[in-house]
Amino acid sequence: MPIVSQRIVIAGIGLIGGSFALALRRAGFDGQITGVGRDEKALRRAVERGICNDYSRSIAEVAGDADLVMHAVPMGAMDDLLAQLAGSVAEHTVITDAGSVKQSFIDAAGRHFTNLQHIVPAHPIAGTEHSGVEAGFDSLFDNRRVIVTPLATSSAAAVTEVAELWRATGASVEQMAPRRHDDVFAAISHLPHVAAFSLVETLHRIDQEEEVLRFAAGGFSDFTRIASSDPVMWRDICLHNRSAVLDVLGQYRACLDELHQAIDNADSASIEQMFSRAKSARDAYLQAASDSIQESK
Amino acid sequence: MPIVSQRIVIAGIGLIGGSFALALRRAGFDGQITGVGRDEKALRRAVERGICNDYSRSIAEVAGDADLVMHAVPMGAMDDLLAQLAGSVAEHTVITDAGSVKQSFIDAAGRHFTNLQHIVPAHPIAGTEHSGVEAGFDSLFDNRRVIVTPLATSSAAAVTEVAELWRATGASVEQMAPRRHDDVFAAISHLPHVAAFSLVETLHRIDQEEEVLRFAAGGFSDFTRIASSDPVMWRDICLHNRSAVLDVLGQYRACLDELHQAIDNADSASIEQMFSRAKSARDAYLQAASDSIQESK
Repeated sequence: MPIVSQRIVIAGIGLIGGSFALALRRAGFDGQITGVGRDEKALRRAVERGICNDYSRSIAEVAGDADLVMHAVPMGAMDDLLAQLAGSVAEHTVITDAGSVKQSFIDAAGRHFTNLQHIVPAHPIAGTEHSGVEAGFDSLFDNRRVIVTPLATSSAAAVTEVAELWRATGASVEQMAPRRHDDVFAAISHLPHVAAFSLVETLHRIDQEEEVLRFAAGGFSDFTRIASSDPVMWRDICLHNRSAVLDVLGQYRACLDELHQAIDNADSASIEQMFSRAKSARDAYLQAASDSIQESK
Repeated sequence: MPIVSQRIVIAGIGLIGGSFALALRRAGFDGQITGVGRDEKALRRAVERGICNDYSRSIAEVAGDADLVMHAVPMGAMDDLLAQLAGSVAEHTVITDAGSVKQSFIDAAGRHFTNLQHIVPAHPIAGTEHSGVEAGFDSLFDNRRVIVTPLATSSAAAVTEVAELWRATGASVEQMAPRRHDDVFAAISHLPHVAAFSLVETLHRIDQEEEVLRFAAGGFSDFTRIASSDPVMWRDICLHNRSAVLDVLGQYRACLDELHQAIDNADSASIEQMFSRAKSARDAYLQAASDSIQESK
């Protein structure tokens, strides 16, 4: 399907919003892109970089004739922005986002909009450790996945438009129910981050009492890489996906409790069973991932 | 200092024992190396690979005229091996090991030997995911650290000999008290492995209920790499360093409990503080590690 939108407003011209715009330009999109942000200097820079044609510091000022509004802002800023948007956007405008948690975006939309036909949340599974207007680049989404999570009320045309835009950026698109998305990502993404932040915090606390970190070997940097992620973004994810994160974190704590008990009891068989299952599960996952890369070649 | 030993017995000719021998040969060691193991085919292969000059399936048979005996066997096999050795080894023979936990080796030695002057435990911080007689290679220890943990009773000559052998393999050697070693490695190595095994086990359990693992992104393979480690070796580490592992695991569980509480209370400030501290601690560690690499260049 061709892209229908001619006037796109992108709120947030950092890594995700900037890369979205640059990837659309790479794909030949020749409509109007208007950047919205708080920092005028960054917005001017976004125009220089070819991310947008023009800009505004107020979404209300520019949303009126947009065909599509993309929210690529921190989740903590979403509610305010939707409130401003609600008073200014046209009836037909498609509204989407790129946040890591979907139900909270839908809840916020529900607070500010009565017509939810054109709301189509999405989550690109892509990122780097950089942020800001200089961070965006046109190939960020190449061969990455974007999960589109339509509402029951989303119009088919709006869902198609959001999916086509993401396909144009180089991503492959799949659909999922919003709550299912939030449960899946609580497990495979939010829990590992929470576990890694807590692990490094624990080692840091121990290190205050007796120096240990200087003995850390090369592996430390691998398994704690995700603990160098943006603390504010991850705080927001924990708060916006609270019940799902608490649920999987509870399951992790239960698993650690079991293991603690098994070690305390010198229960050799249980310890080995758990470690073997984990090793097999990881090895099987990697095998499946490598098979699917082979198939797609 | 020159290496004094002329006849070395290596019990276990897998990754660590094999690499130790090959690295000594690379350094010009021209004495006798005798391999000890259970699998005759592997022992013959070790001779072919130049790991040892000859071999035996019984340590008692060959220990009598050894200058040094290196135990490079799984920790679960250590106690038996020391028992066999105690009846056959000469008074002057230096006895060392390469295990990941030091106090339990010392305790086992104490059960079987009355003279502990020549017991010098050590722990090379090196490894790969491979094991067995084909896994050893002569540069495994290049620029890696070996922690030597002498007993109060260890003779200076024996400590020097073990340190010099490890230096000859390409490693840098530092000394640490055995219990301090076990506490440090419980924190920086054993806890991360336990956390990673448990994380993958938790995701595996969730995956049995509802498919989640297929949505895991690239990061999953990084932060769970250590969960593909040998389950039996890690079971043994948990059992042999039980109290130190339980201690740090308890601290990790307490940290996760705090975070669970903070998320449950939507305590935004506490969550952000913990994540920020963790990120800073990791970034500072990596900076220090990279500075020390620069200095050593």
